[in-house]
Amino acid sequence: MMAALPPALDHALADLLGDGWRTDASERLTYGYDNSRRHAMPDAVALPTTAAQVQALVRACRVHRVPIVARGRGTNTTGAAVPAAGGVVVSFERMDRVLAIRPGDRCAVVEPGVLNGDLQAALAAHGLFWPPDPTSAAFSTVGGNLACNAGGPRAVKYGASRDNVLALTAVTGAGELVHCGSATTKGSTGYDLQRLLVGSEGTLALVVEATLRLTPAPQARGALRAVYRDVASAARAVARLMAQPVTPSMLEFMDHHAVRLARDVGGADLPHAAGALLMIEADGDAATLPHALEALRHAAHGHGTGDGVISIDAADDEAARSRLWAARKTLSPALRTLAPGKINEDVVVPVSRIPDLVDGVQRLAASFDLPIVCFGHAGNGNLHVNLMFDPTDPAQSTRAHEAMAGVFDLALELGGTLSGEHGIGLAKRDFMPRAIDPPTLALMRAIKAQFDPDGILNPGKLLPP
Amino acid sequence: MMAALPPALDHALADLLGDGWRTDASERLTYGYDNSRRHAMPDAVALPTTAAQVQALVRACRVHRVPIVARGRGTNTTGAAVPAAGGVVVSFERMDRVLAIRPGDRCAVVEPGVLNGDLQAALAAHGLFWPPDPTSAAFSTVGGNLACNAGGPRAVKYGASRDNVLALTAVTGAGELVHCGSATTKGSTGYDLQRLLVGSEGTLALVVEATLRLTPAPQARGALRAVYRDVASAARAVARLMAQPVTPSMLEFMDHHAVRLARDVGGADLPHAAGALLMIEADGDAATLPHALEALRHAAHGHGTGDGVISIDAADDEAARSRLWAARKTLSPALRTLAPGKINEDVVVPVSRIPDLVDGVQRLAASFDLPIVCFGHAGNGNLHVNLMFDPTDPAQSTRAHEAMAGVFDLALELGGTLSGEHGIGLAKRDFMPRAIDPPTLALMRAIKAQFDPDGILNPGKLLPP
Repeated sequence: MMAALPPALDHALADLLGDGWRTDASERLTYGYDNSRRHAMPDAVALPTTAAQVQALVRACRVHRVPIVARGRGTNTTGAAVPAAGGVVVSFERMDRVLAIRPGDRCAVVEPGVLNGDLQAALAAHGLFWPPDPTSAAFSTVGGNLACNAGGPRAVKYGASRDNVLALTAVTGAGELVHCGSATTKGSTGYDLQRLLVGSEGTLALVVEATLRLTPAPQARGALRAVYRDVASAARAVARLMAQPVTPSMLEFMDHHAVRLARDVGGADLPHAAGALLMIEADGDAATLPHALEALRHAAHGHGTGDGVISIDAADDEAARSRLWAARKTLSPALRTLAPGKINEDVVVPVSRIPDLVDGVQRLAASFDLPIVCFGHAGNGNLHVNLMFDPTDPAQSTRAHEAMAGVFDLALELGGTLSGEHGIGLAKRDFMPRAIDPPTLALMRAIKAQFDPDGILNPGKLLPP
Repeated sequence: MMAALPPALDHALADLLGDGWRTDASERLTYGYDNSRRHAMPDAVALPTTAAQVQALVRACRVHRVPIVARGRGTNTTGAAVPAAGGVVVSFERMDRVLAIRPGDRCAVVEPGVLNGDLQAALAAHGLFWPPDPTSAAFSTVGGNLACNAGGPRAVKYGASRDNVLALTAVTGAGELVHCGSATTKGSTGYDLQRLLVGSEGTLALVVEATLRLTPAPQARGALRAVYRDVASAARAVARLMAQPVTPSMLEFMDHHAVRLARDVGGADLPHAAGALLMIEADGDAATLPHALEALRHAAHGHGTGDGVISIDAADDEAARSRLWAARKTLSPALRTLAPGKINEDVVVPVSRIPDLVDGVQRLAASFDLPIVCFGHAGNGNLHVNLMFDPTDPAQSTRAHEAMAGVFDLALELGGTLSGEHGIGLAKRDFMPRAIDPPTLALMRAIKAQFDPDGILNPGKLLPP
């Protein structure tokens, strides 16, 4: 942990930012957390309102080698927004404007601090949406979504953050303002720096303006809930669903533990023989939606074979849709009945390896004597592995962390990787050498050094020490 | 131009590659061209068969600071595959295997030298396709497509090369084998190096294996040909088509010159009042396709207003579809009746700026007294601007190149960029400082230096001197 801020820097940034410069301990405290439940105290908090202020701030901090941690609203789950090395937290809460919505160009220009949910509300008036829909959408920022390449259930059809950005303006760790990409849906003009910035967790540059790729909003949607005898049957259905032409707009999976919890604790209406569940959605218009749902039902049902199917229920309206989703919604609170502590990691594997992932996870659960519950975005092979333990029991905590290391190794063995949409931050940083080989990791470090020659941007995150 | 190869390197690579090492002038000659009609003589041609050979070759060339130019089949239009600084052309024609097709994971693993068309044929048996479909698809390689971020008409719905790659294995200019990305459709594990490599034109690394994202093949397609009074009316229709939920699978535009050529020279059945034309396609299945086409027709027609519409014809079968496309197909040969020489550049602008682009191009045509014909991928704002001139007339050649510089400036003024899918190569390299500001360009150079510390990979391409 570094010492307090150099007085010259403190004065310069107070002059630059006025009441957007905070050094009171009580104010700093609340900017030290993120949703990983880690905390570290920053030396100051900056609330810039313009790109020019961000650039001046970075240049000033660079002179004094003071760390800078970009912050949206702290919903990150990996510690990426925690100022572990002290320094200045730059919160983008005052740079929250939607600067332009251009329906004919299918794009919007925004400041990084706009809430995902506020943007979606502004876009809805134009019949458009921005695809990333993390669970936190109502209270997470576009800048934060870009920083960790946030996805969500819709990503199976519409892509994650990286797939839905056209151009970024950003300030590098050298204090340079760079313009990456163009407001066009095709581009082959030099190196693609904008997608490189997405998922870089504030370690390369601070995004000050984003031009986002938009999609016209579908007019209607419909849901199916397919219940299977076992995980293997459900996983085969996922592979069938992803191999036919109608891409579902959501394809969510719950393993047998999740199904049991939803039924026995959450009170969901699910048969006792249920060993796995898929929530399948399609979207479209009134004319095409019934055909899309029929195609999905056909694939879910094994093209007529009934392969492992117990039941498939359809929702024709929003009320019925909510009833079908109830099983999924009860899950998070129900999990807490298993144990007070939870490690939730979002490994990703090729879709065909989902059964191997779920089987392997259950072997780890048995071997470490801890419950592990899997559910998540099956169409992307992106499962949330929830490892339940009592954090007040040191032996359980140790076993939980060992088991999670086993989950990472398993995902990598299956051809997958550490994170689908949460990112690396502090939580998975030490596992990076298992996922990325030494020359590739060395190249990542070398690239980081070009953007941030003094290593002041979010030090200690993403790349292992 | 450098001197002949160092004898030690010649011997070492002859030992390494056997008959895959060619130094005869007659053999080298044919590897010096690409489709930009530029030519430069390489000092040798290497035909590796394995990633290990590629790595050994790069390491050997690095010792002697000998340039390396990766080559697919030379269909590039920008000079990117021409060995302008001599050295070794590495042709991937012997690394052309499809290593795996995994329908359940929607991915294929290929060597870089496989032809796009051969891959599509292999995928069709599984009901899948890889979206990039450049005009050269039958005889261009996947590696070449990745090198310039190739697109094609389908990109409006399915994306270009960069949108359809999951993982790349590549050899950097330092001779390191790097593994970028994972075979999963979501990923947030470190910096996204695989998309950085796409469009880098062999200046960062040589791709030796690619894991491609696949899409299930639609079962049916249908076409509409919409004829408008003028370019502005057609451009408004493009904006309407892109703002509604049914994304066309192709949306091609022809300006008034292109329409006139297709009719008067190509013999296409088009009315004399036609001032612009759109070819609009949808794909889907038998149940949904009619609805999709109706939605597109409705938008093309101005939602009932008939805004500038002369006629909208539909094709219900493949024969009728071919007749509608005839106007577009006759265009390239018909262009040659205007002048023997052609500069074809693929600038891209936001869709809403297409009318401004076409208007501005016609002002340039008048001012430089040369015919300019625009057509191309309207749904992406990616127009092919064809500047016709007589290359044996020095005054016309000079005016043609000045006019093209004007086209680039125009595209940039309109918020667009230099290239949508052809890339930069030698042709647009000197215009890069107009498109990319100094700090961003400096960052691109710094990144290049990390991948290729001695600058041996495709020197002189993409980045200005």
